[in-house]
Amino acid sequence: MLTFPHRPGIRLSQASYWSNRLSHIVLSCPRCGRTRPADMSVDVCNDCAAPLDVKYTTDHQPSGQSGAYEARTPVINPSSGVSLGEGGTQSVELKVLGESLGMRNLHGKLEFLNPTGSFKDRGTAVMLSVAMEHGVTELVEDSSGNAGASVSAYSARACIKAHVFVPAGAPQAKLRQIGVYGSEVHPIEGTRDAVTAAAMDYHRQHGLVYASHMLSPYFAEGTKTFAYEVARQFDGALPGHIVVPVGNGSLFIGAYKGFCELKAAGIIDDIPRLHCVQARSVMPLVAAFTDQSWDAGAASRTVAGGIAIAAPSRQDQIIDILRLVDGTAVAVEESSIVQMQQDLAEREGIFAEPTSAAAFAGLEIIMKQGVILENDTVLVPVTGFGLKDEAPR
Amino acid sequence: MLTFPHRPGIRLSQASYWSNRLSHIVLSCPRCGRTRPADMSVDVCNDCAAPLDVKYTTDHQPSGQSGAYEARTPVINPSSGVSLGEGGTQSVELKVLGESLGMRNLHGKLEFLNPTGSFKDRGTAVMLSVAMEHGVTELVEDSSGNAGASVSAYSARACIKAHVFVPAGAPQAKLRQIGVYGSEVHPIEGTRDAVTAAAMDYHRQHGLVYASHMLSPYFAEGTKTFAYEVARQFDGALPGHIVVPVGNGSLFIGAYKGFCELKAAGIIDDIPRLHCVQARSVMPLVAAFTDQSWDAGAASRTVAGGIAIAAPSRQDQIIDILRLVDGTAVAVEESSIVQMQQDLAEREGIFAEPTSAAAFAGLEIIMKQGVILENDTVLVPVTGFGLKDEAPR
Repeated sequence: MLTFPHRPGIRLSQASYWSNRLSHIVLSCPRCGRTRPADMSVDVCNDCAAPLDVKYTTDHQPSGQSGAYEARTPVINPSSGVSLGEGGTQSVELKVLGESLGMRNLHGKLEFLNPTGSFKDRGTAVMLSVAMEHGVTELVEDSSGNAGASVSAYSARACIKAHVFVPAGAPQAKLRQIGVYGSEVHPIEGTRDAVTAAAMDYHRQHGLVYASHMLSPYFAEGTKTFAYEVARQFDGALPGHIVVPVGNGSLFIGAYKGFCELKAAGIIDDIPRLHCVQARSVMPLVAAFTDQSWDAGAASRTVAGGIAIAAPSRQDQIIDILRLVDGTAVAVEESSIVQMQQDLAEREGIFAEPTSAAAFAGLEIIMKQGVILENDTVLVPVTGFGLKDEAPR
Repeated sequence: MLTFPHRPGIRLSQASYWSNRLSHIVLSCPRCGRTRPADMSVDVCNDCAAPLDVKYTTDHQPSGQSGAYEARTPVINPSSGVSLGEGGTQSVELKVLGESLGMRNLHGKLEFLNPTGSFKDRGTAVMLSVAMEHGVTELVEDSSGNAGASVSAYSARACIKAHVFVPAGAPQAKLRQIGVYGSEVHPIEGTRDAVTAAAMDYHRQHGLVYASHMLSPYFAEGTKTFAYEVARQFDGALPGHIVVPVGNGSLFIGAYKGFCELKAAGIIDDIPRLHCVQARSVMPLVAAFTDQSWDAGAASRTVAGGIAIAAPSRQDQIIDILRLVDGTAVAVEESSIVQMQQDLAEREGIFAEPTSAAAFAGLEIIMKQGVILENDTVLVPVTGFGLKDEAPR
């Protein structure tokens, strides 16, 4: 039996003491514009309760980073942060699927080849590195699956104890994966909102940091590396459209942030049009963006568990982005998600989880709407590994 | 419902017609030294029945490849071969696990972050690209899991119909994954050898190409890219030791080939010592190398399904390599495999399948033997994703 070192640290009550170290950033409210010092003790704006964003106050570039395609990061010293080698995922052309959809330039970015099998690792690596720099030793997260597995794995690697609150009805493979990394799994009966409420109760009662992939301002600072990689991989010929499955929007928002930074730095000329895909049974963003009615209370289940979020905490921000990039939002049927999962596997050799397949199903609709044309270059992130979920039916 | 194109092609009877296109290589017998033209119609030497190797007859470097760290390939035109973006996996330092084992420089290369979740994709990409260049449209493979999933996925992407013969008792998650990509799965009761026999019968009866990851000379031409990446990633400070879980040895042999090429080209000075780890319940290589007795007939089951090969078809070649690189071969207990799988997940955030965990368990033994010392740099490939197998017990 091996013995392992214990890493001493601090809890929430002390977490703000470290805020002076993060002097190159502040936390900024996208709604009211107010700023506050950056630390791990808050999740929303004190004044208007909106989730906060990171804002860079200096041109400080952390050590170990250089070059046009390196994203700025809230992490003071990335080389001593927590990493499992996230990012650097390949983009592959999807000729057969593209032809069947009537398009010539369809690409998939294989985000499921991140260390825990989903894109979430990009965000978790930054959020947990900031947590390490604050000396956090115990934290709370709630997740329908992928973010929970990611936070659990990175917490293990950072010697941080994680409490992960999950819907009791999430796919068994996802729940098993969260538990494998040694975090304490808290299964909660009821709606997805009930899970978040239970996590927030626990975080307050026990004085622990709430490291939420939905609320944390640091998470999108990690997912924005997606945009930097796309810019590098496609170089001069950036995709005109990126079609993203959106639940809480952590990839969608991060990608937008990254492209904005690249444009501001003069590295790209235009931001790709970002489109949002949801399941018809859980479509708050589609409803809000297209002015349809949608009854969250009547939300039924979807096979696309990663986007089954009835009330996204950053909904306003996502809708704003859609307008700014001239994007669209579409809802897809369950049958088309399952069919697309099968087509991706059988035609392209890519075993995606249903949430990722939903984006391709949405692409089919956006094509039919005439928003995307035959010769446009289109990129779809394949966000999660099919192995993490149930097999296709 | 989408419609997909059908790719016309040829069967085994015609496969040798294309052999003149592979004029930069021949197939060579490592036992008797005889050579023959390269095609997809043979799997072993006509004279002495040993599995064949690829031998480069010219300095031809395929188009699209250049630079010291690009491996030579049997594929005529790699840019039109089949690829899912395999390779390019990260190496990460394993500080906590290393410390617990008493070593300062332990690294894991995350081979489970290949497109189907295992290192096999490196070999499959090359084997299937050669098959495509020969116009193969239907093939047979037998696999205990990972190779089957890999061949199934790449066949789907290459529009080739695959028949994958599997042990009926393989983990359900692995069998499901093989089926997901649309290949025809043939579950066979009985020993692993019975599965191979059934596959070979089928290949002969139906006149199909036998694309075996164990026998194909092309497979190791893909896995050798592992060595090229290690050389690039570790640059001047190549690991002194690489500890590999070995069943049929497709990674072990490929890594050795790659390092030999790099040494011959003057890019590296020394070939790392390659060590072989097997499960105590299935240890033909350990027995042969260390002159122990071992009864294949009494082989019991192991959780490490990827190395449960009682009679490796390239056993002689593996033993020869062990001697040439001053390697060692050790057998590990089931309990230490399971414990190491848990330690990797809980201490480093890496969810490896049991076969990969076995290598780390073997490393512990090799350390105790004094073969690897505290300050040595050690690399272990984390060959397969834990999601592919049963959860740890």
